[in-house]
Amino acid sequence: MPHFNKIEYKPIPVRELLLEMKNLSELMIDLAYSAALFNDKPLAEVVMELEERVDTLAYLLDMEIMVAARDAKDAEALVGVSTVAAATDKISDAAADIAGIVTHNIGVHPIVSDIFDKVEKHLTKATVKDGSSIAGKQIGKLGFASRLGVDIIAIRRNKDWIIDPKDSERLFPGDVLITRGAPQAVKEFQEISEGVATKVEAKM
Amino acid sequence: MPHFNKIEYKPIPVRELLLEMKNLSELMIDLAYSAALFNDKPLAEVVMELEERVDTLAYLLDMEIMVAARDAKDAEALVGVSTVAAATDKISDAAADIAGIVTHNIGVHPIVSDIFDKVEKHLTKATVKDGSSIAGKQIGKLGFASRLGVDIIAIRRNKDWIIDPKDSERLFPGDVLITRGAPQAVKEFQEISEGVATKVEAKM
Repeated sequence: MPHFNKIEYKPIPVRELLLEMKNLSELMIDLAYSAALFNDKPLAEVVMELEERVDTLAYLLDMEIMVAARDAKDAEALVGVSTVAAATDKISDAAADIAGIVTHNIGVHPIVSDIFDKVEKHLTKATVKDGSSIAGKQIGKLGFASRLGVDIIAIRRNKDWIIDPKDSERLFPGDVLITRGAPQAVKEFQEISEGVATKVEAKM
Repeated sequence: MPHFNKIEYKPIPVRELLLEMKNLSELMIDLAYSAALFNDKPLAEVVMELEERVDTLAYLLDMEIMVAARDAKDAEALVGVSTVAAATDKISDAAADIAGIVTHNIGVHPIVSDIFDKVEKHLTKATVKDGSSIAGKQIGKLGFASRLGVDIIAIRRNKDWIIDPKDSERLFPGDVLITRGAPQAVKEFQEISEGVATKVEAKM
């Protein structure tokens, strides 16, 4: 049973909202292609979550723009911003449609796999478990990740998404990481982050 | 006055149609961001043309799928393909919405420019003119283009688009080239392709 929260007006700068919408929508396309290519349900579910997040941001941005526009001149200046926001929302919908093929067990047709097989690097999802050797560490200090050629391209922490996190970002138990790398490498990374494997040479 | 053509069924493989739709929709997003960032009307118009092209491909693909599906099992296998096609169409619509800000003279709000300013490289449009020194040459033989750091990412030839053309592709008068590179470099490239400048060291 889905849980619906009332979306309340929060004074977040329009610039921040729009930037997050744009970044999320681009990430979602990559994730959706990857989910379809590898018939990866957990990844497809991430796309669905992100779609909800973009929807929420779209509502917040609409409200922010309404409050900001005092007169016709403001409205004229801001209509371009609301158009771009609506476009990023549309892109995120399209990504969710693609992910829906996976979550609805429609089956990924060979033509679709073919089309997406230029997604050379595997995207995958890993959760940082309590007691995992990477918990508490900064991304830049995970020497093994760069040796494996694995990039952390996004972190979900509670309800927030950190896209393209900095090297100084610290990882915490419960963080969901979206990683990109060769299939074997992201699998190894996943095992380490979930505490199944412990091969870690990270330094604090 | 727009000219409407009847879209007639043509037996083009679904794979080809879908691949072109996906490639065009991705290119369109880049082009739309670039058009908005630089308030570039010719580039925005290219996005509009491409949107029409994607629409046409979508109709052709729908017809192709209808013809291909003989029974319920075929339909189940193909519904994922039609979902992906619809998603690429949605992405191309979103790109056209963004380009519309430029073609409708809505004005690009500083927030929008800010959001798009990660498009570090300038995309631009250049037409190969009759008598230009690049007419008749293969892309791989345009030594000056690689020295300038300019990539030709798409060619429109009559009604067709060649996305990510190969080095062996020959350029012809009338070709519209979408190029990516540093602002000064793409400008120089444009002048050469339009025969304004002749600095060319390309070898046949």
